[in-house]
Amino acid sequence: MTTKHESPYQNLKGVFHEPNRLAILSELSSASDGMTFQELKDECSLTDGNLSRHLKALEDAKVVRIRKSFSKNRPQTTIYLTDKGRDRFMEYLQALEEVLARAAESVQSESRKTAMSLTPRPARS
Amino acid sequence: MTTKHESPYQNLKGVFHEPNRLAILSELSSASDGMTFQELKDECSLTDGNLSRHLKALEDAKVVRIRKSFSKNRPQTTIYLTDKGRDRFMEYLQALEEVLARAAESVQSESRKTAMSLTPRPARS
Repeated sequence: MTTKHESPYQNLKGVFHEPNRLAILSELSSASDGMTFQELKDECSLTDGNLSRHLKALEDAKVVRIRKSFSKNRPQTTIYLTDKGRDRFMEYLQALEEVLARAAESVQSESRKTAMSLTPRPARS
Repeated sequence: MTTKHESPYQNLKGVFHEPNRLAILSELSSASDGMTFQELKDECSLTDGNLSRHLKALEDAKVVRIRKSFSKNRPQTTIYLTDKGRDRFMEYLQALEEVLARAAESVQSESRKTAMSLTPRPARS
């Protein structure tokens, strides 16, 4: 389903490469029992509308599964990462790792001249 | 100029977080003498129109400097990463590194149960 491209940059295109979606996926990745809409909203600091829109897109891509139920007579929405979603997110993270390594190498090959580094400098005393 | 947010995901918002721009910046980072439009186009596998649009946005953000000159009586466009552009790109890469580490940790904390790993598995023999 995911086409692997020769260029690692092309592998970043798709449903995950948006900062808020990265936050959503990162949260869901560590929640095997799913998360409620409210929990996810709080953790990712998103509005209802914003989170709904992202979840709709992720559900359409079969990355998340959304279950509506009742808890103490109140409607509750729980969101789960699907197995396919987890696999694809891991592929995405691998592509990101590759792109980051490549970019860091480019920056550092040049910055050796000016003694800059990606690693934060120690705090000045 | 760049506002540092508490959430690392918010630090990804901005001019760099687009796969083709990442490719452009990565190329320019290692080219202290700049790159011609044609070189950049070839390296990033972009069309004229696409590269032009990205460069316009990056120039507006003062990330690149574009110089038009003549070489062998033919017009030539050379693109340089600005100092400010390099600094901001490094900040972006640091934010990306942080997000990646956090996401990889989330994925791995769960996947220990299922023995998956971000590191590619050895090829089956």
